[in-house]
Amino acid sequence: MKVTVLSGGVGAARFLEGLSRTIEPASITAVCNVSDDLTWHGLHVSPDLDTLMYTLAGLEGEQGWGVRGDTQTTLERLREIGDEEWFSIGDRDLATHLYRTGRLRAGNTLTEVTQALMSSHGVKVNVLPVTDEPHPTIVRTAEGDLAFQDYFVRLRGAVPVTGFEFPGRDARPAPGVLRAIGEADLTVIAPSNPFVSITPMLVVQGVRQTLARMPGKRIAVSPIVAGAAIKGPAATMLESLGYEVSATAVAKLYQGLIDLFVVDTADEALLPEIRALGMDAVATDTMMTGSEGRARVARNVLAAAGFGESVA
Amino acid sequence: MKVTVLSGGVGAARFLEGLSRTIEPASITAVCNVSDDLTWHGLHVSPDLDTLMYTLAGLEGEQGWGVRGDTQTTLERLREIGDEEWFSIGDRDLATHLYRTGRLRAGNTLTEVTQALMSSHGVKVNVLPVTDEPHPTIVRTAEGDLAFQDYFVRLRGAVPVTGFEFPGRDARPAPGVLRAIGEADLTVIAPSNPFVSITPMLVVQGVRQTLARMPGKRIAVSPIVAGAAIKGPAATMLESLGYEVSATAVAKLYQGLIDLFVVDTADEALLPEIRALGMDAVATDTMMTGSEGRARVARNVLAAAGFGESVA
Repeated sequence: MKVTVLSGGVGAARFLEGLSRTIEPASITAVCNVSDDLTWHGLHVSPDLDTLMYTLAGLEGEQGWGVRGDTQTTLERLREIGDEEWFSIGDRDLATHLYRTGRLRAGNTLTEVTQALMSSHGVKVNVLPVTDEPHPTIVRTAEGDLAFQDYFVRLRGAVPVTGFEFPGRDARPAPGVLRAIGEADLTVIAPSNPFVSITPMLVVQGVRQTLARMPGKRIAVSPIVAGAAIKGPAATMLESLGYEVSATAVAKLYQGLIDLFVVDTADEALLPEIRALGMDAVATDTMMTGSEGRARVARNVLAAAGFGESVA
Repeated sequence: MKVTVLSGGVGAARFLEGLSRTIEPASITAVCNVSDDLTWHGLHVSPDLDTLMYTLAGLEGEQGWGVRGDTQTTLERLREIGDEEWFSIGDRDLATHLYRTGRLRAGNTLTEVTQALMSSHGVKVNVLPVTDEPHPTIVRTAEGDLAFQDYFVRLRGAVPVTGFEFPGRDARPAPGVLRAIGEADLTVIAPSNPFVSITPMLVVQGVRQTLARMPGKRIAVSPIVAGAAIKGPAATMLESLGYEVSATAVAKLYQGLIDLFVVDTADEALLPEIRALGMDAVATDTMMTGSEGRARVARNVLAAAGFGESVA
C-alpha cells in the first residue's frame, strides 16, 4: 500500500509522524510545500521541509518547529550587533540552512539536498519538495503585498488578508512528485492550511490534474475543528477572505479533488452539508495530542478511507 | 597627524591595536584587504576585516582570528549532518557573517556594512575595505588554480605556489580609500603577507599610483623576521616562488613605493642591502608579544618614521 500526503508544516508533520508509526515509513511519500521558503541573511530556509524532518526525526521544538532544546547563541549575538531580527533561528537549526544553502550553491537540487538531509536525520518517509524551482506565496493584504514569512512571523498574521498570489505558479514539479500522487493507493491532503500550504502545491504544473485523475482514493483531513484552526492562520484567513470559518468551507475548496473529507467528531453535525458538496464525509477523532494521539489519528484516517480499522 | 595602514589580517590587526593605544584611534585609517573574502554556505565572510574588528574590539580568538571563547554548536551540527566542513566558524562569529550578508543583500555596500559592524563593536579606528567590489585572490599552484581559503585553510598552504591571479584587478577603490592614502601624514604597509594581503590592494584602481605619489611618509614593516614569517604563509610563498626568504626580499617587492623599510633587530645585518635598494631602513623591535608589545612596536615604528620617540 502506497500513501502520498500533501503536506504543509506542523499539522502535516504530526499526521505523518503518526502515519509512519502505523504503516511502513518507506511506503509513505510526503509531497511538501515550499512556498513558505525564504532567504534569511543569504540562507535558504525551507520551514515546512524542516518541520517534517525534525518531527519525523523526533527532534521538533515545543512550538512544532525548530530543534527541541536548541540554543540561540548566534541569534542573540546578531541582535547585539544591531540586526532587527524577527525570524528566530536556533544554533542547531542554523546548520540545516547552512547545509542546504551550501549544497544548492554547489549545484544540487532542493530534492537532492532534502534527500541527504532526511537521510542524515534517519527519516525513512520519502519527503519530496513539490518543486525544485522558486515558488513563493505572496500574501495580499490591506497593507500591500507581503512575503509569507513577513506576513506570518514579522506581522504575526495580524493584518487582514485579501488574497494570494503565486508568481511561480508555472513551476515544474520536482522529480517523483506526479508519480507519487498518481500511483498512490491513497493520497491524503494533510490537515494543513488550504490557502498557503495546499493551494501553492496544487498550482504547480500537473499536480491538480494528477490528483483529479488518480485512480486511488483521495481524502482530505480538515485543519478546522469546531470553527478554529488547530495551528496557524487558516481560521483568520478564511474569515478575512469572507468565508465561513468551518470545516465545510475547507471541503468546498477541495470540491472535485477529493473523494472523502474527514472532520473531527466535534464537527459531526456538518457531515450532511459536506456530503451535499458531492463527496463522502466522516467524523473521527482528529486531535493529534501526544505521540499516541498522532498514531491514533493516522489509523482513524486510514480506516475512514477504507484501509484498516479505526481505534478509539 | 593622520596615519593610514594598509592591512591584511592578524599581523596588521596587532599592529593597529598597538597603534590605536599610542595615537588617537580616530586619526587612524585601516585600508583592509578583501581578497581573502569567501562565500561560505551562502554567507559573505571577510576574514581580514573581521580579524581587525575582533582584535580592535579586544575579542580576538587565541589564534588571532574568530571570537575568543566562541562555541561551535552550529559547526558541530553541520558536521554531524554530513557536511565536509574545513572552514571553522564559531557561533558568535557566525552572527557577523549573517549580518554582513543580510545587509549586502539589502543593497548596502561592504563599506557601509563594515562601518556599522565596527561601530557596533566600539571600534574607533576608521576601517575601510579597499574595494566594495568582488576582488578575489586566485592562488596558482602545481595542483591548479585555487581560491585563497581553499589553498590556505583546506590545504593548509601545503601545496607549492607558482603565482597569483587577481581577476578583479580592475576593481574600483571603495569611497575614502584613495583620500586616506593620499592625505595621510604617514602610510604604513603593515607586517602582512606581501603577495596575498598587500599586492591585491595595490592592484585596485589608483591605489599604487596614490601611494607612489603621496606627499607624506611611506613605510613598510617587514612580516619576515630572521628568515621566517611571524604568522601565515609568507615565508612558504617566498620560497616556492624562488625568492630568498628574508626581509630584503619583501623590501624589493615594495621598491619605489616606500621611503623606509622597518626590520626587526634580529635582521639588523640586512640594513645595508636594503638601503642599497634605494630606500631608508631601520631595525627596531617588531615582536608584538602581548598587549604592551603591540603598543611598543607601534611607537617604535612611528619613531623610525620620525614621529615621536622610540621605547625600549
